[in-house]
Amino acid sequence: MKVNKIGIVARCDNRDALWMAQNIIDHFGMKVDILVSPDTAKPLGLKNYKIVPIKNMRDLGAEFLISIGGDGTVLRSISKMEDPLPVLGINMGTLGFLVDVNPEDAIETIGKILEGFTYHERIRLEVTFNGQKLPSATNEAVLITARPAKILTFKIMVDECEMEELRADGVVFATPTGSTAYAMSAGGPIIDPRVDAAVIVPLAPFKLSARPWVVPADSILKIRLTIPEKKAAIVIDGQYTYSITENDVVTLTEAKNPARFVKSSVVSFYEKVQDKLT
Amino acid sequence: MKVNKIGIVARCDNRDALWMAQNIIDHFGMKVDILVSPDTAKPLGLKNYKIVPIKNMRDLGAEFLISIGGDGTVLRSISKMEDPLPVLGINMGTLGFLVDVNPEDAIETIGKILEGFTYHERIRLEVTFNGQKLPSATNEAVLITARPAKILTFKIMVDECEMEELRADGVVFATPTGSTAYAMSAGGPIIDPRVDAAVIVPLAPFKLSARPWVVPADSILKIRLTIPEKKAAIVIDGQYTYSITENDVVTLTEAKNPARFVKSSVVSFYEKVQDKLT
Amino acid sequence: MKVNKIGIVARCDNRDALWMAQNIIDHFGMKVDILVSPDTAKPLGLKNYKIVPIKNMRDLGAEFLISIGGDGTVLRSISKMEDPLPVLGINMGTLGFLVDVNPEDAIETIGKILEGFTYHERIRLEVTFNGQKLPSATNEAVLITARPAKILTFKIMVDECEMEELRADGVVFATPTGSTAYAMSAGGPIIDPRVDAAVIVPLAPFKLSARPWVVPADSILKIRLTIPEKKAAIVIDGQYTYSITENDVVTLTEAKNPARFVKSSVVSFYEKVQDKLT
Amino acid sequence: MKVNKIGIVARCDNRDALWMAQNIIDHFGMKVDILVSPDTAKPLGLKNYKIVPIKNMRDLGAEFLISIGGDGTVLRSISKMEDPLPVLGINMGTLGFLVDVNPEDAIETIGKILEGFTYHERIRLEVTFNGQKLPSATNEAVLITARPAKILTFKIMVDECEMEELRADGVVFATPTGSTAYAMSAGGPIIDPRVDAAVIVPLAPFKLSARPWVVPADSILKIRLTIPEKKAAIVIDGQYTYSITENDVVTLTEAKNPARFVKSSVVSFYEKVQDKLT
Repeated sequence: MKVNKIGIVARCDNRDALWMAQNIIDHFGMKVDILVSPDTAKPLGLKNYKIVPIKNMRDLGAEFLISIGGDGTVLRSISKMEDPLPVLGINMGTLGFLVDVNPEDAIETIGKILEGFTYHERIRLEVTFNGQKLPSATNEAVLITARPAKILTFKIMVDECEMEELRADGVVFATPTGSTAYAMSAGGPIIDPRVDAAVIVPLAPFKLSARPWVVPADSILKIRLTIPEKKAAIVIDGQYTYSITENDVVTLTEAKNPARFVKSSVVSFYEKVQDKLT
Repeated sequence: MKVNKIGIVARCDNRDALWMAQNIIDHFGMKVDILVSPDTAKPLGLKNYKIVPIKNMRDLGAEFLISIGGDGTVLRSISKMEDPLPVLGINMGTLGFLVDVNPEDAIETIGKILEGFTYHERIRLEVTFNGQKLPSATNEAVLITARPAKILTFKIMVDECEMEELRADGVVFATPTGSTAYAMSAGGPIIDPRVDAAVIVPLAPFKLSARPWVVPADSILKIRLTIPEKKAAIVIDGQYTYSITENDVVTLTEAKNPARFVKSSVVSFYEKVQDKLT
Repeated sequence: MKVNKIGIVARCDNRDALWMAQNIIDHFGMKVDILVSPDTAKPLGLKNYKIVPIKNMRDLGAEFLISIGGDGTVLRSISKMEDPLPVLGINMGTLGFLVDVNPEDAIETIGKILEGFTYHERIRLEVTFNGQKLPSATNEAVLITARPAKILTFKIMVDECEMEELRADGVVFATPTGSTAYAMSAGGPIIDPRVDAAVIVPLAPFKLSARPWVVPADSILKIRLTIPEKKAAIVIDGQYTYSITENDVVTLTEAKNPARFVKSSVVSFYEKVQDKLT
Repeated sequence: MKVNKIGIVARCDNRDALWMAQNIIDHFGMKVDILVSPDTAKPLGLKNYKIVPIKNMRDLGAEFLISIGGDGTVLRSISKMEDPLPVLGINMGTLGFLVDVNPEDAIETIGKILEGFTYHERIRLEVTFNGQKLPSATNEAVLITARPAKILTFKIMVDECEMEELRADGVVFATPTGSTAYAMSAGGPIIDPRVDAAVIVPLAPFKLSARPWVVPADSILKIRLTIPEKKAAIVIDGQYTYSITENDVVTLTEAKNPARFVKSSVVSFYEKVQDKLT
């Protein structure tokens, strides 16, 4: 089915990304309605376009969102949407897992997608901090010491069972999408995105027998620091950082609404991993 | 609901296991029908009991199977049943993940379970070899070089996509149940048994970027040796070994019927892992 | 040969450690001269004893230093001495690799050692920061991101050869003594203290093929951040932290003077590792 | 100093390697004396050349040995020499760490080397089996289960101290040269060849806290199987295999005579590792 309305956002501190946004708007602005993110509209000096925050684009009828930049741009865009639009990532730079389209293919690929598209759904992790919702994680939420090289002691509960009390620099809670990002650097396995699971990977654990854990995505994970006077942070998708101290409780579970990614090629997950990782 | 009929099998080269079987039969033989495995009946010189191969016990009405020995005894018992009875493992010896009941608690625990029981279901992997069914794996199937320290080259396909071509000593395909067995020694993650997945762990891979993979349990996995003149073996649950050469194809996928384990305590999976592994 | 003069230091925020110091002073003060660290003398209200900073104890004739607390107390004491006295660690608390004597054995062990003792020498790493000497590391020097979960990019040179350019949370440079501390949590090997080497262990490296490196202790190691605008820290023995930014150069090499540890038992290095780590 | 006499050996089941040998002989046969290994002379039908087993070449005055093939050819050649000649490896095929010269550069490189050369010395491990000498290992000696996927139990002693009793598929004892070969696939660190050490890497150890060990090259390592009825093999440099059973004792220590490698380029060890491994 033909697409009528789309959103667009570009990494605003990257000239090539902004230029690409302008190029896409020039090219497709007559064929479809384009909602432009304020951060993108401003440096481009756009005036005759609908300038709409990403979080409102779905309600205003956008059918998918073009995100121009790197994985960070995609992750920030998704985190702003309660019920995420499908995202099409245009890769302006370094290696990225979430930006499938190269700049030179962008116009052609978008042209095809506007004739009709399908998308993948990928689970996100809902993160709460003392009962208050933080941005959901598309890749991962990391508990990490806030003082370089000072070990933390914390407890992880899974559905009210104690999983482990760990002394470590921290711990990564990743989705399958995030299993090829930070979780992997920390020694975690690759999780096929069709598996409905989260992976928990300790960072430099003191206990030599500590291993990554794979748990059901909808289990309720709780973390609490168990040694006072330690300072830690929660970092979501490498984008958002929150301080945490001893009485704070962080919970994670599968978010109600998944991330969605526009399918732009026939490359399988396994080919992509081979291509990016080796 | 009260149990009327059970099966029993003991590790036949272990006197303590046989003695425990006799003890259980003496104790409960008047209360329930007991079907005894031939291997167990013979060394005990049993004559007045129904001697029945494990594979026929379900059809003859057994409600669960008592397996006395170690993990190997449990794994062999399950592999003999097309649609496995729930198994209650009595641990006669070393550490085991599948044998929850200590000998000194056996009589009391069995007594309680005969008043009514519940069980866990755990996925198994169906293994075929050039189209012919091998025993299903409760823990894992391992492809491994048959010549010590001689590297293999093989290809793994997931649902017809090439996952990886590996040079390695071999590769482990494990269920969540098996994730704490051989797969873990090879560097794999711990998989919560509620996760519907299989884990693929390379053994001493030449490529340093090789990582364990977690894939949907019902995906169809295929392995084929890609360098001729190499000799390899498939080992299922550490019990059954098959030779494999270059044109052979091994496939794995979730078995139709799961393994089943009688619940005998309130110890959670996580407590058990903590207890056994650290 | 009989010992005439010793030094003593206790962890000053630990009552049991201070009490143990008092106890040792009471017990041996008539037999040998005891130089007391100012930090220890003050909370004990000692007045009739020679109060001497640790760094001056060797010049004033102390033959070894009793350090009461944990590994941290030992590491700090050694770092204060240009040419370290042999240290005897009394363990007041949690597991430690550098504190061999349990409190209940302290008096007896010290009594024996005062009759004559031998010691091990253990290499230290001299650390310079833009050409200025930092405290030498008995365990390790860690380069680590100062912003939780933000990856660094840095280059390591070995004797003017580029070893690797890494994207990682950081990197540990450890002595054999430190190989069982932080370096091990990060995935490093155990180095027998007789091996004249340093071990380099990346922390959560982006590149999956990154591995720990073992290099000659006297090679000259240099690190430099290669991406601007990143903030990092150097942490020495978990005790001293220094900020580092893009143009800074940190070098490490074997220190002229080793750490020294009084032999207090016949337990081998291998027994100790088995005991502490498993 | 000009070279007068050299040895040559080629992988005899590889036509390209044999052809390269012929080419080198044709090219340099008038300038230097060339001793040809019998295995190489035979398929080439050489008659007017001195045909000399590799082990006798040093006594007959050869100054270095050209080895044409892969790492295996180099390893076998060195193992035949009690006091190894410097080896120059010509790489006929896949990736190799010990074969530095590409075929297209062979003639030019050899030409230069004949004008004068230097070489690296690399420690080897002397291996004895119940007191009898086996070939020394240039890369590694591996103790490994002879029944695929059947775990071994064995004890490792270091200089008469028990290092560890392990349940594992086996264990690799590698030199620094071998640290980038099988030991690395098994999870071992990279050892700079200037470090005088051996590395011990367990293969799929049951105990999760097992780690690689780095020990002095001249320590005396002993291994013994501790559970009877298990079958194991010792594999040296991937070339020589010996059966071992429960009462056998294998010892390893630094060999009197090192391996020697002709320097053929200015590429550093670190560049080579980067080049080969990533």
